[in-house]
Amino acid sequence: MRDKFFDELALLTDFYEFTMSAVYFTHDMFAPATFSLFVRNCPPQRKFFLAAGLERLLSILENFRFTEESLAYLESLGLFKPSFLDYLKTFRFSGEVWALPEGTIFFPHEPVVEITAPIIEAQLIETLVINVLNLETTIASKAIRCVLAAQGKPLVDFAARRTQGLEAAVQVARATYLAGFSATSNTLAGKLYNIPVTGTMAHSFVQSFGEEEEAFWAFVQEFSENSILLLDTYDTLGALPKVIKIARMLERQGKRLKGVRLDSGNLVSLAKEVRKRLDEAGLSYVKIFASGGLDEYAIYQLLAQGAPIDAFGVGTKVGVGADLPYLDAAYKLVSYDGRPVAKFSQGKATLPGSKQVFRVYDDQGKLKEDWIALRGEEMSSGTPLLVQVMKGGRRLSPPEGLDQIRHRVEEGIRRLPSYLLSLEPHGAKYPVYLTSALIELQEKVQQECQNLQQQKF
Amino acid sequence: MRDKFFDELALLTDFYEFTMSAVYFTHDMFAPATFSLFVRNCPPQRKFFLAAGLERLLSILENFRFTEESLAYLESLGLFKPSFLDYLKTFRFSGEVWALPEGTIFFPHEPVVEITAPIIEAQLIETLVINVLNLETTIASKAIRCVLAAQGKPLVDFAARRTQGLEAAVQVARATYLAGFSATSNTLAGKLYNIPVTGTMAHSFVQSFGEEEEAFWAFVQEFSENSILLLDTYDTLGALPKVIKIARMLERQGKRLKGVRLDSGNLVSLAKEVRKRLDEAGLSYVKIFASGGLDEYAIYQLLAQGAPIDAFGVGTKVGVGADLPYLDAAYKLVSYDGRPVAKFSQGKATLPGSKQVFRVYDDQGKLKEDWIALRGEEMSSGTPLLVQVMKGGRRLSPPEGLDQIRHRVEEGIRRLPSYLLSLEPHGAKYPVYLTSALIELQEKVQQECQNLQQQKF
Repeated sequence: MRDKFFDELALLTDFYEFTMSAVYFTHDMFAPATFSLFVRNCPPQRKFFLAAGLERLLSILENFRFTEESLAYLESLGLFKPSFLDYLKTFRFSGEVWALPEGTIFFPHEPVVEITAPIIEAQLIETLVINVLNLETTIASKAIRCVLAAQGKPLVDFAARRTQGLEAAVQVARATYLAGFSATSNTLAGKLYNIPVTGTMAHSFVQSFGEEEEAFWAFVQEFSENSILLLDTYDTLGALPKVIKIARMLERQGKRLKGVRLDSGNLVSLAKEVRKRLDEAGLSYVKIFASGGLDEYAIYQLLAQGAPIDAFGVGTKVGVGADLPYLDAAYKLVSYDGRPVAKFSQGKATLPGSKQVFRVYDDQGKLKEDWIALRGEEMSSGTPLLVQVMKGGRRLSPPEGLDQIRHRVEEGIRRLPSYLLSLEPHGAKYPVYLTSALIELQEKVQQECQNLQQQKF
Repeated sequence: MRDKFFDELALLTDFYEFTMSAVYFTHDMFAPATFSLFVRNCPPQRKFFLAAGLERLLSILENFRFTEESLAYLESLGLFKPSFLDYLKTFRFSGEVWALPEGTIFFPHEPVVEITAPIIEAQLIETLVINVLNLETTIASKAIRCVLAAQGKPLVDFAARRTQGLEAAVQVARATYLAGFSATSNTLAGKLYNIPVTGTMAHSFVQSFGEEEEAFWAFVQEFSENSILLLDTYDTLGALPKVIKIARMLERQGKRLKGVRLDSGNLVSLAKEVRKRLDEAGLSYVKIFASGGLDEYAIYQLLAQGAPIDAFGVGTKVGVGADLPYLDAAYKLVSYDGRPVAKFSQGKATLPGSKQVFRVYDDQGKLKEDWIALRGEEMSSGTPLLVQVMKGGRRLSPPEGLDQIRHRVEEGIRRLPSYLLSLEPHGAKYPVYLTSALIELQEKVQQECQNLQQQKF
């Protein structure tokens, strides 16, 4: 069952990281480099991002090593010197990491992670760093929008079957829970991350019994009060009398049916009608769950139209971040051997030097503006966001619990000004400024870079 | 380094599969069920799909079992009877699988995989079946469009850093190679699937040397004729004189520089100017590689505008299937205990019974039309597409090699009529018909289903 590739994760690297590293090795380039990971821009369908994936990244960095089999493969390519391959044998990540804690709200150009290590180390981990942070951050940044739309009603991750891979299914469950979902249908994710799991029946279950009522009875006999009956296999409203009969039977045993699930049709009118008929039957405690192609916009519309839905199952569209399935995340060299560096190409500019982000709140405690500063700058009016989490290749503190991260997200949401809470694709952008020290460094680096290139012509 | 979850893949299941299975177990429902996986519809941005992921699915099915730890977790939830948990201890997949061979072109509603097994087995694997086939099929169906757009020019998978997870990075490399890409930058995928790996340098490499020419020299000293020099760190055309100098130096050693890479700017005008200046310098053998946000539309445009680009690096947009990041794939019960079943809800209808697909070619050997038939029907004018690949839980033949699958894809492309080769989002749809036997069964099942529901009111 087990795929081999998690043993050989150090090879999950764009091949040019190896060719570049081989050259650095030949030239004794072991000076420290700092790389900064940030998101280049925020398209209209997102107003902010939610940092996630750090815990997994740190675990990968702590355990980064090449297996004998991996090294034999690299050797077989016939491109690398024996001395370089020898060097990789004992290769470990020994660097330091500064990062936004998971669950931090952030904006374009703000460093999410900054890694300082001998350049070969910082380079060989590039693909892993971007991939791991990109996945969970992409999904968490979509999921939190559903949380905002649901106005406190519980959300359940239903995405496992259509995420981009099995690993993604587990990380999507984690990222959505981190962002404020209440549970997942993904059993393995439930086990690995201690997330509540939930789920009841599919249409195939009802069909396998032939008669719907028989299927409902069989389920309720097995799971009693934990049962949520799926209404739409044949006809949603037609299933209701059977549900009411079963609920009354449970009542005679002193028990209460948990709920019903709607999975197709006009969810607004169906939910209203189902609620009305359940209430008329004295079953106001039976909850209505809804699922089927939901995302933040659909949830918002359902509630705006007064659909009496108690909880939402949210699947594919969040699980692949359908309207923004990747972030334009870049991992860029910002200094080498004490020399700040930057790129100045249009749309792909980078900010030189290692950095800090300060967040300034207004007098209601809401986010007012952010400042990107050089690391080491102080700003009495702002709260620094980046924290050192790794030194000498080891974590500085044990992994954060998901509860702690969820608490940070809740706090973050409380502090969002109203224009950032809206799902509207347009409107004001959150102000992010560069400190004058950073601007001066940027200009200096640009000037030096021009001088250097001009000298050579 | 190794994550635990590949050991516990049997738990990567929507929780309702367990609750439903517990009921089946209680009711001694061990009769065979057939489930059919198909894609519900084909949005305008795809004209057909390319089947992929079967090899991995079969490997997962052959090795499907619950670890003690997995069972302890299920027990800890307090919902399942000891007898059911005992049953899971020795649980194996013992069913049969019919499937489209990987690399087969297919259309909506055509079964991609049909699985027949005792209903608990067929149900517990649902999440894995959909997930595994959906990922590679989604990506292969996007990648083949790039292959069509590139008109024979080589394509390289550059997606690893922004795929949705590390596992996805490996499967994306496989799916793109299967569809006709020539190589990948993903070193681990290269090792695991024997795909050629390629890659040279990043901007950070050039920046770490400070002076561009120095960086180029260092690289060429290490990799000689295998070097592809990245031009756009500072100024694409400004870098060319350095490249020419280096190429001449290599010539004096009897060697030839492999190529240059363009990664930003107007790729049409830059490629033309770079080609012109290289040719004027007598370096017509130096190839031009292009990368940076490419997909099938960008490749098509570049070539249509005469950009003299020799090979393309294709990353994120294909690696996440950006314009269609999931297929509307469903895995639906089509028969239980010898009784054909179907759903009739609008937009979510299913076809009853186990099936076969026949493909009919015109007299030029091009695809003319497909027929969805009942399994066991014959059609002298059509070629059956579904093949039995597993029986009693074991494969019927060893895994197909990727070369064989690539060959099937090439053959499939040769047989595509021109209206399916076009990238245009509109135009004629490929005709897929149901045989009269299938239509009759569908009507019979619908009638029976209505009778059954009406009886109860």
